[in-house]
Amino acid sequence: MPYINIKVTDEQVTPEQKRQLIAGATQLMVNILNKNPQTTHVVIDEVPASNWGVNGQQYSGTKNQVK
Amino acid sequence: MPYINIKVTDEQVTPEQKRQLIAGATQLMVNILNKNPQTTHVVIDEVPASNWGVNGQQYSGTKNQVK
Amino acid sequence: MPYINIKVTDEQVTPEQKRQLIAGATQLMVNILNKNPQTTHVVIDEVPASNWGVNGQQYSGTKNQVK
Amino acid sequence: MPYINIKVTDEQVTPEQKRQLIAGATQLMVNILNKNPQTTHVVIDEVPASNWGVNGQQYSGTKNQVK
Amino acid sequence: MPYINIKVTDEQVTPEQKRQLIAGATQLMVNILNKNPQTTHVVIDEVPASNWGVNGQQYSGTKNQVK
Amino acid sequence: MPYINIKVTDEQVTPEQKRQLIAGATQLMVNILNKNPQTTHVVIDEVPASNWGVNGQQYSGTKNQVK
Repeated sequence: MPYINIKVTDEQVTPEQKRQLIAGATQLMVNILNKNPQTTHVVIDEVPASNWGVNGQQYSGTKNQVK
Repeated sequence: MPYINIKVTDEQVTPEQKRQLIAGATQLMVNILNKNPQTTHVVIDEVPASNWGVNGQQYSGTKNQVK
Repeated sequence: MPYINIKVTDEQVTPEQKRQLIAGATQLMVNILNKNPQTTHVVIDEVPASNWGVNGQQYSGTKNQVK
Repeated sequence: MPYINIKVTDEQVTPEQKRQLIAGATQLMVNILNKNPQTTHVVIDEVPASNWGVNGQQYSGTKNQVK
Repeated sequence: MPYINIKVTDEQVTPEQKRQLIAGATQLMVNILNKNPQTTHVVIDEVPASNWGVNGQQYSGTKNQVK
Repeated sequence: MPYINIKVTDEQVTPEQKRQLIAGATQLMVNILNKNPQTTHVVIDEVPASNWGVNGQQYSGTKNQVK
């Protein structure tokens, strides 16, 4: 506890960015909620852009407009 | 908002079906809840059939009986 | 299978709307993916507006702009 | 996109802390992944401590040891 | 790690049953996957029966047929 | 109903272990909550170790210490 799940499309997420996301999300729990980082879990789900839709359309077809 | 997550086994989902799922789920939010489609997100997770169980058994072993 | 999770803020969702969401989401699975409705599950999560943020702000503070 | 779900036990989360969690998680997406905050959603789930277990025991019975 | 999420309708789940679910799910991870129970988290979500549908209908209206 | 989601890192999960996880989690629902196994769904998500963090670090870099 806590458990943080981050879902993003599977474009452009580098190993260094994953490292930063995990470190940053954990630090939020420590700073804001005074949680123990040793029991804070962060899971990143990379979703294919064709499986994520907004405004009724797939990201794979709209990525010029929305990021 | 809203956020809709659709989980199905990873068989037979075509790009056109994904497009229809995203459009259809978004339209439900507009029609029933009067939500803004521009802030409605739909995420489709395709789960390997060997990772999904019902009645205590994997779908990969039961797909003749259950769909 | 399938499993559909719908997350919305906890404002204004009537019993009739829940009924329509469940019926509508199930029908999408039948029409688009040819799934069996008897094994299609729909779960609606109503999230307090103060627990949902977009653009870095809680919905409870932004509901005039975004729906 | 992105979508961030934060699950914590339902103790001691003040409105100000929720505001900070939403702002902080959104800022991570902007800073690390260069995402648009207007399409970044954060949902906080507050789980009763008796419904969360670690080491095979409920948090409600172990909160002196683990945070 | 691991993280187990159990969703059930919010009927009839006693504190003792929650305790057993958490202990049992943790033990599965230890026995089958050789995981460390100290890092195994179990979260139980109790969903209102009117928010869960199967076969296109709410559980609150079908509980005589399906459990 | 119920719906159980098991998230583990994507190391070392054999088909036989998946079978056992699904059977075991379903049996817990039958034994503890008296649920119908035919409507009990279990979904296993295998998460890349580089996408899962604890104590602010990726599992892929800490697997000697934590399991």
